[in-house]
Amino acid sequence: MLIARVIGDLVATQKHDSHHGRKALIVQPLNLDGSDRGDAVVALDSVDAGIGDRVLLVTEGYSAMTSVGRPESPIDMAVIGVIDRIDLG
Amino acid sequence: MLIARVIGDLVATQKHDSHHGRKALIVQPLNLDGSDRGDAVVALDSVDAGIGDRVLLVTEGYSAMTSVGRPESPIDMAVIGVIDRIDLG
Amino acid sequence: MLIARVIGDLVATQKHDSHHGRKALIVQPLNLDGSDRGDAVVALDSVDAGIGDRVLLVTEGYSAMTSVGRPESPIDMAVIGVIDRIDLG
Amino acid sequence: MLIARVIGDLVATQKHDSHHGRKALIVQPLNLDGSDRGDAVVALDSVDAGIGDRVLLVTEGYSAMTSVGRPESPIDMAVIGVIDRIDLG
Amino acid sequence: MLIARVIGDLVATQKHDSHHGRKALIVQPLNLDGSDRGDAVVALDSVDAGIGDRVLLVTEGYSAMTSVGRPESPIDMAVIGVIDRIDLG
Repeated sequence: MLIARVIGDLVATQKHDSHHGRKALIVQPLNLDGSDRGDAVVALDSVDAGIGDRVLLVTEGYSAMTSVGRPESPIDMAVIGVIDRIDLG
Repeated sequence: MLIARVIGDLVATQKHDSHHGRKALIVQPLNLDGSDRGDAVVALDSVDAGIGDRVLLVTEGYSAMTSVGRPESPIDMAVIGVIDRIDLG
Repeated sequence: MLIARVIGDLVATQKHDSHHGRKALIVQPLNLDGSDRGDAVVALDSVDAGIGDRVLLVTEGYSAMTSVGRPESPIDMAVIGVIDRIDLG
Repeated sequence: MLIARVIGDLVATQKHDSHHGRKALIVQPLNLDGSDRGDAVVALDSVDAGIGDRVLLVTEGYSAMTSVGRPESPIDMAVIGVIDRIDLG
Repeated sequence: MLIARVIGDLVATQKHDSHHGRKALIVQPLNLDGSDRGDAVVALDSVDAGIGDRVLLVTEGYSAMTSVGRPESPIDMAVIGVIDRIDLG
């Protein structure tokens, strides 16, 4: 998983309403020091994350689909948690 | 998912007509500022997208196959939505 | 999928003859302008492609295995079509 | 798999407590010479690894989910072993 | 698949002995000209490959797990063949 920050959302028209009203979030992956890690990506929300939240992002299809209900959701990235705390040893 | 723009299409001869007459689109992934994100890729269409449309692109096999009918479509990228609106917080 | 050119083939000894006599092709991924896109990779053939053919390449395991018969073929890349025509809008 | 070092952990709030109390570890992938390989990532622990341990990291969803109990754990990276010895021929 | 050379092996302690006594090999991916392609990775052996062998490497979880017995082996890379011959057209 990657650490990311929610920076926006997106509305798209689909043939099959497979995303079930879940929000498509625009999230910016982050390095540990908080700097940007590449460019932003689009991930389906599974935790009611909001703009500015620091979240946990899965970037693989099978696991992303599992997080939001696999059979009808053809997605490859999902927000699976809102990060409360990071501890570096 | 990535944001991308449809810039062309492609015709290929396959052994098994697994793509069911769906179009193989050439799509250019985009950064949030609209600039190119790497080079173009080929994705199967699941939403009747046309040249110039800004679309939502899945880039993983299992989810791409789900979007267009999995068992007979050996694909790893699919266009799953036409983007209507992007809101940055 | 990526556009690629077949530039050779490869013979390997396996424990289980899982590739069913299909050819392991060496293919060079290409950018849209025909220039090389990274270095060559090895992909199982599912369309009787030959040296010099411009082909469609899947680069994900689940979809590659689907294209050639999944259960016994542990592969992660396959040539799934010979490209006849590319149209840029 | 990649060689990595555990450098911290992370607590996140999820809708479904799918990670079963397993720790989300922050791990730094390493090159063979011990230098950093890109930036740190977040992986679910399946071996009770601790800070400073050199571990084996899977970075793909299906295999990561298998290592910790697939159906309810939407993860794409997992720590699957603590490395005891590396032998270079 | 990638062409790679076996350069070592690795012993790790796991919770579940899911790798079935198979060797975890350290393999260096290669470009076609024999030069290094990024840094070395760890792959489970399915063909009794030895140090110095030039091998065929799968780098995706589902196919890697298939090559060595899927259900109990949470791996994302496997050595699936020893290369006998490469022919460039």
